[in-house]
Amino acid sequence: MRHLVEPEDLSLEEIQELVDTGLKIYQSPQAYSEICKGKILASLFFEPSTRTKFSFDSAMMRMGGNVIGFSDADTTSAKKGESLADTIRVMNYYADIVVMRHPKEGAPKVAANYSKIPIINGGDGGHQHPTQTLTDLITIKRFKGQITGHTMAFCGDLKYGRTVHSLIRTMARFGTKRFYLVSPEELKLPSALKRQLTEKYTVDFIESPYMEDVISEVDVFYMTRIQKERFFNEADYLKLKNSFKLTRDKLKNAKKDMIIMHPLPRVNEIAYDVDDDPRAVYFEQSEMGVYVRMALMAKLLEVGPYVRG
Amino acid sequence: MRHLVEPEDLSLEEIQELVDTGLKIYQSPQAYSEICKGKILASLFFEPSTRTKFSFDSAMMRMGGNVIGFSDADTTSAKKGESLADTIRVMNYYADIVVMRHPKEGAPKVAANYSKIPIINGGDGGHQHPTQTLTDLITIKRFKGQITGHTMAFCGDLKYGRTVHSLIRTMARFGTKRFYLVSPEELKLPSALKRQLTEKYTVDFIESPYMEDVISEVDVFYMTRIQKERFFNEADYLKLKNSFKLTRDKLKNAKKDMIIMHPLPRVNEIAYDVDDDPRAVYFEQSEMGVYVRMALMAKLLEVGPYVRG
Amino acid sequence: MRHLVEPEDLSLEEIQELVDTGLKIYQSPQAYSEICKGKILASLFFEPSTRTKFSFDSAMMRMGGNVIGFSDADTTSAKKGESLADTIRVMNYYADIVVMRHPKEGAPKVAANYSKIPIINGGDGGHQHPTQTLTDLITIKRFKGQITGHTMAFCGDLKYGRTVHSLIRTMARFGTKRFYLVSPEELKLPSALKRQLTEKYTVDFIESPYMEDVISEVDVFYMTRIQKERFFNEADYLKLKNSFKLTRDKLKNAKKDMIIMHPLPRVNEIAYDVDDDPRAVYFEQSEMGVYVRMALMAKLLEVGPYVRG
Repeated sequence: MRHLVEPEDLSLEEIQELVDTGLKIYQSPQAYSEICKGKILASLFFEPSTRTKFSFDSAMMRMGGNVIGFSDADTTSAKKGESLADTIRVMNYYADIVVMRHPKEGAPKVAANYSKIPIINGGDGGHQHPTQTLTDLITIKRFKGQITGHTMAFCGDLKYGRTVHSLIRTMARFGTKRFYLVSPEELKLPSALKRQLTEKYTVDFIESPYMEDVISEVDVFYMTRIQKERFFNEADYLKLKNSFKLTRDKLKNAKKDMIIMHPLPRVNEIAYDVDDDPRAVYFEQSEMGVYVRMALMAKLLEVGPYVRG
Repeated sequence: MRHLVEPEDLSLEEIQELVDTGLKIYQSPQAYSEICKGKILASLFFEPSTRTKFSFDSAMMRMGGNVIGFSDADTTSAKKGESLADTIRVMNYYADIVVMRHPKEGAPKVAANYSKIPIINGGDGGHQHPTQTLTDLITIKRFKGQITGHTMAFCGDLKYGRTVHSLIRTMARFGTKRFYLVSPEELKLPSALKRQLTEKYTVDFIESPYMEDVISEVDVFYMTRIQKERFFNEADYLKLKNSFKLTRDKLKNAKKDMIIMHPLPRVNEIAYDVDDDPRAVYFEQSEMGVYVRMALMAKLLEVGPYVRG
Repeated sequence: MRHLVEPEDLSLEEIQELVDTGLKIYQSPQAYSEICKGKILASLFFEPSTRTKFSFDSAMMRMGGNVIGFSDADTTSAKKGESLADTIRVMNYYADIVVMRHPKEGAPKVAANYSKIPIINGGDGGHQHPTQTLTDLITIKRFKGQITGHTMAFCGDLKYGRTVHSLIRTMARFGTKRFYLVSPEELKLPSALKRQLTEKYTVDFIESPYMEDVISEVDVFYMTRIQKERFFNEADYLKLKNSFKLTRDKLKNAKKDMIIMHPLPRVNEIAYDVDDDPRAVYFEQSEMGVYVRMALMAKLLEVGPYVRG
């Protein structure tokens, strides 16, 4: 029995295979529409998230399964002082697989220790969000033909964004040797992470506070949201916010086949008129998230293409 | 691909046909119990509503489909500043059809502009509530044999009640020439709406603050809730509240085959002992809401009786 | 048509039969996986409860049915002043069976009076919780071979715990003549209940504030949570809390085949290292709750093994 707490729980071969299965399901969803019949997903969101929750709920339903759960811990026994270990042990009898989001880092790991059914981490604090990484990878594969071999830039809040950290780490595992990083000084990629990647995978980072400096080089441009409250002061925020906003104008020098990704929700870091540019694939990215989550749940439940021989 | 944002989005023929299909489903629900198999309804209630939400959820499930959604915008990405347009574009990948209630007038129209799947307006502020109108019409047809040709009275808060506005407008389109309106001075039907209907459909309004004045004339008596906070002052409210309360006593002069309707929830504007009167059909009205919503979703999804030839 | 508002609504024969059916479903769940196809459970939690709600939701889904509902009355029409009677009458058209939890004692009884579909009480204030009693009984039967004939002890808050009251009453109906009661002075079983049981069923109670006094005698040891706020003063709480905590140490003198039960959630009244003791069956107790609720809903809906001849 397997869990998915962090991307490293999956080998590169397994990730490749999940991405490929996800793409197959995307091509012929009908063939998979009953593989989870009779299965129940417990969708436990101790912290709200429209997108991740709905993506999982939809994925399970599109495979013929059912969903129980909550999107607000206030209506749960956690309020009565129950430990997460107890909550999960009981859930084991109500469901066949769990996805959980929790504000506390490491909570899914604890849950996995006490669970006899698969636990999927749907985001734990600023820590990990492995199914977002799978979503990013299947999107890259769909639009660029393969996961590796692209020049990638990340832009925005690179300090706190768990999405970026997970994806960079995974791309490094896949052999990417250089990343372009565009962020304000306060929100640079943490040095500890850079050091770790440099030493383990001999990765090289090119940093700049100006999007314009790098955009013409890039195959995959990964935008993220900058939260106002991350800035040390209002003046910095006002001065910098437009530097990290992607506009039609800034796209002029970009490659014709570049793709623009964003984990969403977006606030204003991508101008709305960029949406019509064929390079903008962030909505399709949400779409692909459903398919790779279908593949993941099928794998962990050992159903459909993953039935045991 | 079609949306339902306001009743005017449907022709009179289409409304007739939805009502008839709803009645057919009511007669033989079993025949329709699988027509939405594999379909997902996103039930997005940015503002709470037991009745409308459950009616839609039940309607989709009774056709074999599934439901994702929320009944409280606080658990969504809207809180993170995401635009409605973005929320809807992402939902397009998680569901096959959307019903939404939103406190902001016009929000479903905006959603429809950005959606590639059908959007149904489940109520936008004080503006429109088209599926309540369909519910009202199917109820009239079930109990009075046909939609048109009845003397109709509306009683209660005629100023703010979107239900009343939508239904009066639609009945005028169907050819009704006269409405009886019973309300306190402060809560009369807006003049702008009256003028519009008079000019466009030569409709005539007979207004009175006394229920007793009109009840003996009426075939369809439509009650609505008066919210205390709508009154200008407490004294007016205390003075008037009983005039707009339907009691067994006031029913004495009513026709034997009159029907009493109410969109519910009721507070105290219909005395509880009226419930046992055979003319009271407001609970059956809730019942019919499920069937006409089944017909509507089948039509917008082009399934069952609406499969494309 | 039947409701389940309190355990006394079921005869001893019916309880036995539900327990036996629950055990059969537990043995071969696959045989029951479609018996509620097309059915809808309305799961109305006017007061939160993870465990009971999820147990019912899961039970209905495991029989192929669907679930609508809420876990928070704030998102409902109750807020608009609608009576429970009206809410239930409308729910009759949206669902086939209702489970409700309500903070007000007697609310499910009121609901049953107005309902044409079965109402199950999922807990009303400090009053009744009949499906917890069924859960307790099926657990005893699974682990002890039969419902009756065991020496039972109850420990913790015996004053306010509706779970304990319901189970003691039901065990008395089944012929149990003696109960061991372990609780602080402030939280003893109410005298009125004791008198009632003594007079009606000639039951005998042996009370002690020390777990150690009774544990060696017991076949079924039923623990409950003591809420700090139940104590009259902090000093009492600090003095007593460890007396009502079950530890590995205290288990040394217990019988080898004793079982330890707890309705959960637990806070700290059972030490975590007791979980690994084979006598600890409180998680399996949650498990059995799903199966006996499947049996109950099948019975009330007259499906599967309860189809009318």
